[in-house]
Amino acid sequence: MKKNKIQLADIPTTAPAGLEKKDLKDETERLVERLGELQHIMYAQGKYSVLIILQGMDGSGKDGAVRNVFHGCTIAGLDLASFKKPTEEEFAHDFLWRSHKWVPQKGMMTIFNRSHYEDILIQRVHNWITEDRVKKRMAAINAFEELLEFDNNTLVIKFYMHISKEEQEIQLQQRRDDPTKFWKHNDGDWEERKLWDKYMEAYEYAINESDIPWYICPVDNRWYRDYFIAKTLVERLEALNMSLPAVKPQ
Amino acid sequence: MKKNKIQLADIPTTAPAGLEKKDLKDETERLVERLGELQHIMYAQGKYSVLIILQGMDGSGKDGAVRNVFHGCTIAGLDLASFKKPTEEEFAHDFLWRSHKWVPQKGMMTIFNRSHYEDILIQRVHNWITEDRVKKRMAAINAFEELLEFDNNTLVIKFYMHISKEEQEIQLQQRRDDPTKFWKHNDGDWEERKLWDKYMEAYEYAINESDIPWYICPVDNRWYRDYFIAKTLVERLEALNMSLPAVKPQ
Repeated sequence: MKKNKIQLADIPTTAPAGLEKKDLKDETERLVERLGELQHIMYAQGKYSVLIILQGMDGSGKDGAVRNVFHGCTIAGLDLASFKKPTEEEFAHDFLWRSHKWVPQKGMMTIFNRSHYEDILIQRVHNWITEDRVKKRMAAINAFEELLEFDNNTLVIKFYMHISKEEQEIQLQQRRDDPTKFWKHNDGDWEERKLWDKYMEAYEYAINESDIPWYICPVDNRWYRDYFIAKTLVERLEALNMSLPAVKPQ
Repeated sequence: MKKNKIQLADIPTTAPAGLEKKDLKDETERLVERLGELQHIMYAQGKYSVLIILQGMDGSGKDGAVRNVFHGCTIAGLDLASFKKPTEEEFAHDFLWRSHKWVPQKGMMTIFNRSHYEDILIQRVHNWITEDRVKKRMAAINAFEELLEFDNNTLVIKFYMHISKEEQEIQLQQRRDDPTKFWKHNDGDWEERKLWDKYMEAYEYAINESDIPWYICPVDNRWYRDYFIAKTLVERLEALNMSLPAVKPQ
C-alpha cells in the first residue's frame, strides 16, 4: 500500500479566493471552443482517443459539466456512457465488463458519467464486497487503465468532482424544491448523504491507489468547475501535438 | 521474467504408448455425457462460469474438438467465439476489447477458438509489435484472466493443442486433397508453417509466462485429443461440487 498522499479535507472545494465568475467567462468560452477544435483534429487523425471519467457525490455537477464543457465538440467523435445500477446481464459479469465495452476507439472522446470506480465506492461503503475484493478490484482497474493507454493511445483523464458537504445539501434541496430540477430528485441521495464520511474515505483510497493520477476539481462554484475541466482537457490534448492528416501530393 | 519451465519439444504430441483408439472409446463417450450433465447443473445454478481457450497451429484440431467434445451440452448454456482477423472496429481498440465482450456470464460455458493470445503470437512472429508491447500485453492478459476468476467465478481453462510439424503437414495436405475438407484449405496456412520455430518459441513464452496454467493437449491422435479435453473439463467441473438449486420448502 502506498502512503495516502491526498486528504480531500485539505483541498478546497471552491474557486481560488478573489476570483469571480466574470473573470473567467471569456477564457472558459475560449477553452470550450478550443476543445472542440482539438477534438475535431483527434477525430480526423484517428490515432489517439480520450477517456474522461467524472466521479463525485450526488449533486457534484457531473451532468452540468457534460452539458457545459463539450458543446464545441462534434457528437460524431463524442460518446457519453452513464453508468447506473448494473443490469442483470452486467451483474452476471466481472465489474469491468461493462466499462470495457464502452471505452473509446481510436479518434473518439468518451465521457464516463460515473464508472468502474463505483464498484469500489458505493459497493464498499455499503459493505457489499470484502476489503480483499476492493484491493483486487483496485489492481484490476490499474491494469485496465494502463492497457487502454499503452495499447490504444488512450488518454485516461479522471476528475474527482470535489463538493463540500454543505454545498451538496443546497444542491439536493434545490432538486426537491425547484420544479425544473425535481426530476433529478431522489430520496436515495439523502440516504447516501448520511454515509458522507465513509464515501470520502473510499474516494481517498481510490484516488491514492490509482496509478493514473486524478484531477481534483473544485465544484462548489459551477463556473469554476467548467473552467477547470475545459482547461485541463485543452492542456492535455494540446500536449499531443496532433495535426490533420496531410494532403497527399498529386 | 520467470524461468522457462515448459519446452514443447520435450512433450509428446501423441497418445501414450500402448494406448489405442478402441481402449478409450467408451470412456470418452461417458466423459462427454458427464460434461453435459455438469454443464446443465452449472447453467441451472448460475453461480460459476467456464472460459475454455483453444490455441494451436493451423490443423491442430480446434474445430474438431469443438465438434466432438461438447455435443452433450445444451447450447442454451454454451457459447462459441471464433477469433479471426480483427475487424476495423476491433482493431481500433485495445487487444483485449473483443475478448472481454465475449467472456461468459455466470452459468455459461464459453469456448474461445483462438483468443487474445493471438495478439502475442501471430503479431509477434511477424514482428508487427515490439517486444516491449509483448511483455505489456502478457501482463495485461494475466490481469484480465485473474479478473474473470476472482470477480466472476470463472474457471479459465486453456488448452495448447500440441501437434507435431509432421502431423500438421498431413492435415494441411488433406485439406488440399480431400474435397470434403477443401473448404478449410488456405494458402496462408502453408506460409505460416514456414515460421514454425518462431511460433513454438512464442507459444512457449505465452505458456510459461501465464499465471493461469495451460494444459498441453497431444493432438496427433484425434481420439486422444477428445478424451484429454473431455477428461480435463469433467475433472475441473466435478471439483466445483455444484448442485441444482434446492427445492424450496412449501
